[in-house]
Amino acid sequence: MAAPILCNPIGTVHSPFPEPVGVPIQPSRANGVEGTVEVLPEYEEGLSDLDRFSHIVLLTWLHKSKGFHLRTVPFLDTEERGLFSTRSPRRPNPIGLSVVRLLAVDGCTLAVADLDLVDGTPVLDIKPYIQEFDQRTEFRSGWLERSKVKRRSADDRFSDRTRR
Amino acid sequence: MAAPILCNPIGTVHSPFPEPVGVPIQPSRANGVEGTVEVLPEYEEGLSDLDRFSHIVLLTWLHKSKGFHLRTVPFLDTEERGLFSTRSPRRPNPIGLSVVRLLAVDGCTLAVADLDLVDGTPVLDIKPYIQEFDQRTEFRSGWLERSKVKRRSADDRFSDRTRR
Repeated sequence: MAAPILCNPIGTVHSPFPEPVGVPIQPSRANGVEGTVEVLPEYEEGLSDLDRFSHIVLLTWLHKSKGFHLRTVPFLDTEERGLFSTRSPRRPNPIGLSVVRLLAVDGCTLAVADLDLVDGTPVLDIKPYIQEFDQRTEFRSGWLERSKVKRRSADDRFSDRTRR
Repeated sequence: MAAPILCNPIGTVHSPFPEPVGVPIQPSRANGVEGTVEVLPEYEEGLSDLDRFSHIVLLTWLHKSKGFHLRTVPFLDTEERGLFSTRSPRRPNPIGLSVVRLLAVDGCTLAVADLDLVDGTPVLDIKPYIQEFDQRTEFRSGWLERSKVKRRSADDRFSDRTRR
């Protein structure tokens, strides 16, 4: 197995959520919540041409996520499931994947909407959202297809209290 | 800015590609190439319930990627673009995002198809692909919409020779 891997954040999320409680579970349930991504000045040149993409993928380090359980009750289900079949933020490497709307690029600052991230979250990478690469048209969604609690949008799942 | 972040791989990709040259640029251009993900035994329990998802997201460390340029000619274009508006594997944190088909789960081994990864690539996270979270129906694709070289599928873009 490979040695530990070192990442250096390229920027930071600024959002209206100072703490994990109440953070939307995903951009698709964030109701347009706006915020910014501040990229380090040394990377500014790498942001050119991004402004013509409507959506970007933020890969982040979910720094408020503490520990994990290999079986967990997903936010959108009522039964325990294997961790890697869920989108729980509590994972061995708590890397967040957020497809957000890009509103504007101004120097090192990206204005974004549909934020599902805590204020201060470190950003590891920014990619353009590209239909051919990121969409699949035929798929099965496992336990989610029969879940009875599909409509919730936020809870306390970063902490240990709910085992999420 | 946050301190460096340490990730520990949870598994390894086994693919038919011993080196980056010839690796498909994305799962959508991999023509069904098959391989496996070997997850460390300590995480096996976390794989339960995954088998009913048709697609999974692999977040990987593109260990063969060397250095980066903040402006680069994307594989699917002929002009230099800002790095973060491209899916080049050569990034400050070379984290790969691959949506692959899940064929089977057997113990710690995931059989997958549409692999766009080099043999031995460390896996940082595995997530279920979920339509609501991962798809957007209305979007703009920036420079890609007018590119004239949209149909290529593999090259030597991991190395410095082509500045990709």
